[in-house]
Amino acid sequence: MRALTWDGVRLQVAERPDPVCSEGMAVVEVGVAGVCNTDVEIVRGYMNFRGVIGHELVGTVREGPSAWRGKRVVAEINFACGRCAVCARGLGRHCATRTVMGILGADGAMAEQVAVPVANLHAVPDGVPDEAAVFAEPLAAAFEILEQVHVRPRTRALVLGDGKLGLLCAQVLHQAGASVLAVGRHEDKLALLRARGIETVLASDWAGDPAELVVEATGSAEGFAAAVRATLPRGTLILKSTVASRPEVDLAPLVVNEITVVGSRCGSFEPALRALSSGSVEVLPLVSARVPLDRADEALRVAQQPGVLKVLVTR
Amino acid sequence: MRALTWDGVRLQVAERPDPVCSEGMAVVEVGVAGVCNTDVEIVRGYMNFRGVIGHELVGTVREGPSAWRGKRVVAEINFACGRCAVCARGLGRHCATRTVMGILGADGAMAEQVAVPVANLHAVPDGVPDEAAVFAEPLAAAFEILEQVHVRPRTRALVLGDGKLGLLCAQVLHQAGASVLAVGRHEDKLALLRARGIETVLASDWAGDPAELVVEATGSAEGFAAAVRATLPRGTLILKSTVASRPEVDLAPLVVNEITVVGSRCGSFEPALRALSSGSVEVLPLVSARVPLDRADEALRVAQQPGVLKVLVTR
Repeated sequence: MRALTWDGVRLQVAERPDPVCSEGMAVVEVGVAGVCNTDVEIVRGYMNFRGVIGHELVGTVREGPSAWRGKRVVAEINFACGRCAVCARGLGRHCATRTVMGILGADGAMAEQVAVPVANLHAVPDGVPDEAAVFAEPLAAAFEILEQVHVRPRTRALVLGDGKLGLLCAQVLHQAGASVLAVGRHEDKLALLRARGIETVLASDWAGDPAELVVEATGSAEGFAAAVRATLPRGTLILKSTVASRPEVDLAPLVVNEITVVGSRCGSFEPALRALSSGSVEVLPLVSARVPLDRADEALRVAQQPGVLKVLVTR
Repeated sequence: MRALTWDGVRLQVAERPDPVCSEGMAVVEVGVAGVCNTDVEIVRGYMNFRGVIGHELVGTVREGPSAWRGKRVVAEINFACGRCAVCARGLGRHCATRTVMGILGADGAMAEQVAVPVANLHAVPDGVPDEAAVFAEPLAAAFEILEQVHVRPRTRALVLGDGKLGLLCAQVLHQAGASVLAVGRHEDKLALLRARGIETVLASDWAGDPAELVVEATGSAEGFAAAVRATLPRGTLILKSTVASRPEVDLAPLVVNEITVVGSRCGSFEPALRALSSGSVEVLPLVSARVPLDRADEALRVAQQPGVLKVLVTR
């Protein structure tokens, strides 16, 4: 099969052996894959990954249990052992011996086919088109915020960053009933939120009033300090950005203002699929470009261009 | 009156005007004051404070409402406005216009007398000696952990640091029913915890097994990274140390392991006084030295000597 591979030096579409369907696994024929900033970071050396890139997909099960064959699916990306104490607590996403699709020890989804554990499959509801379903993974990461902190109807939330994840987090908090202000640098991206009734402001125009809940989704090393300044005493800062660099951080304001910092990564897919099905979150306007698998290396380049949101890799 | 004053250059016991008892205030004749690491930091420039040092005291009310006069008291250190939205939420310790005794805009307790708001007074229960009552403030800071996180009977907690605050935090978590392991560098300090039935280990002998709850009380800039490594995925890190330096911090593990960092500062005095009264926390063995007020500048020097825990300033 064809697949987008990274060998530590070159990113190229190459011929790879078809994945083998072992016990407990399914082979999914990929319909659409999404480019994530993590893919871009991997090609910069993040996680020291080698293999097929990609962890956002929608496709059709071709091999595996008969109950799944032919079904349209999305797949959670953390492949847990299912037997350790962490897995027993339902925290397979933190299993110490996990592999992660396209990120850590497991081939990814920018390919004709990908092998995933059956336990990671989720059927896509009818009515959710492929180009929306492919957002299940990043949208689940946004919903993870609601698993971690209690968002109340009177919660005033700031979302810092108008990249893909920032736009999803703002929508998730908005549909949860919070009063959201999204702060970003791109008028056209913020306009997508205003169309959903979410208040927005350009960073250059923002007065900087702090809030009790702040989501740091800037993707930049400087974002953390800005987010600390934007969090009220006794407030909560959701940390979403992973950056390779190690910024100098003044930790004293966390103590003096008793701020809680909640690191937040992947989430479970059910609430994301429900939101895509109900339309409480809108993702299709975030699609900036489509690139066929044969030219998938271009997709990563396009994804890094200014103003570009989600780039999809199609068959 | 005599008082230990810091003018930005010199720390000295000097003659100062007696405090005036204005509306809503009380004047307390100080019996015993305690030296905190924050006092040492102030003389290094922290908070840019000028005035009378000290924020840990027990004493007797000499001026103020008749109901309080003659009473033996301790006093909360944050002098809040009592009128703003933050104060209305019961968070006077975070009032934006607060002054703080001996730390920010208000004279402190290493003096013959100190003025404090009546609202900040707490009567000391009979049976709690002065040298225990003077620990009310740092012990309240340790109890603040229990206000911020849910400590369960099955919680396994690590306390990193065997300084004064570390020893208090370990005892507070222990009496709350958690399974505590205290990690420190001083065999004699850890022995105080073992005498209370708390498990301890020298840092040099510690295997480094992570825990779901970690208290960072090392007082060092390197403590944060060590505490992150010691926190299990989805675990909670209580950040107690305030350091003036800005360490380079790798924030990615917070996101990847979904760690919650809870900044923790001052607490309310009631649970601390109850614990001192019941004996569920023991503080008298932490007293290393007593220095009379006339030589209070020496008290800060003694407090910085290796192996020294609490230094008290007496009349």
